[in-house]
Amino acid sequence: MLDLSNQLAIGIDIGGTNTKYGIVNHRGEIIQKGELKTEGYPNIEDYIEAVYAKLKPIVTSVSDQYTLKGIGIGAPNGNYYTGTIDYAPNLEWKGRIPLVKMVTEKFGVRCILTNDANAAAVGEMMYGAARGMRDFIMITLGTGVGSGIVANGQLIYGHDGFAGELGHTIIRPGGRKHWSTDLDGSLEAFCSATGIVMTAVELLEKSQDESLLKKFKPEDITSKVVYDCAQKGDALAKEVYRFTGQILGESLANFIMFSSPEAIILFGGVIKAGDYILKPTREHMEKNLLPIFQNKVKLIFSELKEADAAILGASALVWELKENP
Amino acid sequence: MLDLSNQLAIGIDIGGTNTKYGIVNHRGEIIQKGELKTEGYPNIEDYIEAVYAKLKPIVTSVSDQYTLKGIGIGAPNGNYYTGTIDYAPNLEWKGRIPLVKMVTEKFGVRCILTNDANAAAVGEMMYGAARGMRDFIMITLGTGVGSGIVANGQLIYGHDGFAGELGHTIIRPGGRKHWSTDLDGSLEAFCSATGIVMTAVELLEKSQDESLLKKFKPEDITSKVVYDCAQKGDALAKEVYRFTGQILGESLANFIMFSSPEAIILFGGVIKAGDYILKPTREHMEKNLLPIFQNKVKLIFSELKEADAAILGASALVWELKENP
Repeated sequence: MLDLSNQLAIGIDIGGTNTKYGIVNHRGEIIQKGELKTEGYPNIEDYIEAVYAKLKPIVTSVSDQYTLKGIGIGAPNGNYYTGTIDYAPNLEWKGRIPLVKMVTEKFGVRCILTNDANAAAVGEMMYGAARGMRDFIMITLGTGVGSGIVANGQLIYGHDGFAGELGHTIIRPGGRKHWSTDLDGSLEAFCSATGIVMTAVELLEKSQDESLLKKFKPEDITSKVVYDCAQKGDALAKEVYRFTGQILGESLANFIMFSSPEAIILFGGVIKAGDYILKPTREHMEKNLLPIFQNKVKLIFSELKEADAAILGASALVWELKENP
Repeated sequence: MLDLSNQLAIGIDIGGTNTKYGIVNHRGEIIQKGELKTEGYPNIEDYIEAVYAKLKPIVTSVSDQYTLKGIGIGAPNGNYYTGTIDYAPNLEWKGRIPLVKMVTEKFGVRCILTNDANAAAVGEMMYGAARGMRDFIMITLGTGVGSGIVANGQLIYGHDGFAGELGHTIIRPGGRKHWSTDLDGSLEAFCSATGIVMTAVELLEKSQDESLLKKFKPEDITSKVVYDCAQKGDALAKEVYRFTGQILGESLANFIMFSSPEAIILFGGVIKAGDYILKPTREHMEKNLLPIFQNKVKLIFSELKEADAAILGASALVWELKENP
């Protein structure tokens, strides 16, 4: 085994609004971290300068004790094979951005890129709930629904680097149209925070029953509002989660019959609803499985702190780099 | 590279009714082949004796020129990890059959087992339409719907050896109940030969229009009858394929967003319908994909002769055996 104890990796998580970064050892301990705005740098060169200005002093401060092995980056539409960010709808840089090439040149160390959900899966495999697992699926339920799939101990990238877009698989053909993809009845249209709010508004329109949610204007309902009402025992708010869990559970059953993972790991803001969503999810997952798959797939929550997971995942990519490329 | 030119592999395809076998060289040429009944051996020991009696003379006849590297077997519910056939509903042997152990002991060579659809995928990768591909999905459309998934150049077995049951994924939640799994709206319920016949009967019941199919009693309609009527220009028969293709296309879109394969390879009796089914399949596949996946996944037919594919696939497993286990 290679001794990694004197090596560090930088993890960078590029989001639409903010960029988070951290310098991490091989045990997944974040030595130092920070963030900067992603917005406000329409020019990618300026953005890389800004990241460099933040990171350079940190790298210098640890350079007597450690070697920097590389930089791992998670970004929307980040492509592992090409090292480019391709037409990311929620970033200001248009077209195809050769990020790995630019970062490598600027920092003088190796750089590896993937999309944010894949990075989260690698983080979970290395430091979180998927330690020791060779087959699992990570589902992130936040503003959108992302996923990272590990099979045979490797991330599934597909032939073009774009595998694992489970949020866009169709679970209700002809159902609710997605606000940005235009696909009908995709998982994300129902099980993202946005989808949950839409479900709440739809149920409110149809329901004649009392509900705490009726005190809110439709435009003021957020997933937090739905959660708070469920906590207060509101039946309609609970029904929102039951319905969401049903859709999620049906989708998970399909994913299990695809890659037969040891576990499905759920991550992201939506899972704060805990059993409100987990119970119906598990019920409908089991119900839609062939007997050979029933009662054996673990359905668990991420063990990584949400604030750190993306940095850890991005940094974890670095430890997978071959010594001699 | 290892010289394989003096080595042979045996491929055995165990079906519910018949067992086919062949002795194959590393270029995929079948030197000799044959078959025997699977039915009629309620005792697995008797079955293995019967297979041995058939194969022993062949092995002896080539033994001056060649070495037998091993035996590959494709069987329903064949488990790659455990080497067992587990509770196969359409075989006479009940429970869990330790096939690899028994065959190894009887023949004195190494043996490897997987399910029939996985074996077909390996055959396609080694000798057929998937040569050189590292990411593809094979879908067999016959009496049932089977699948084998290759990602990163490896078959996806999942944590328990049961991955790739795409025929049982749900594509019409709450839709047509499957005759044996009891799942609602699975791919197999619609796109198998059995499903196609059910669609034809359902459409006939609802339709007021003329149709050649109306000359048949419902119990006499087979997928061949539907095909023949479509060939004669019958609109209802064509509609059966259009509907079947729509369901298949929607499912394929979901599979593509899972593993982003370079190609999907279709195999089995149902694809004899050619463009009747391929055109709607392609249309609905593309329609349900995110733009990043559109117009790049090849949808192609198997290049292996149907009669030989299972033997070739099973034998191909042998070439993947490590030299020193």
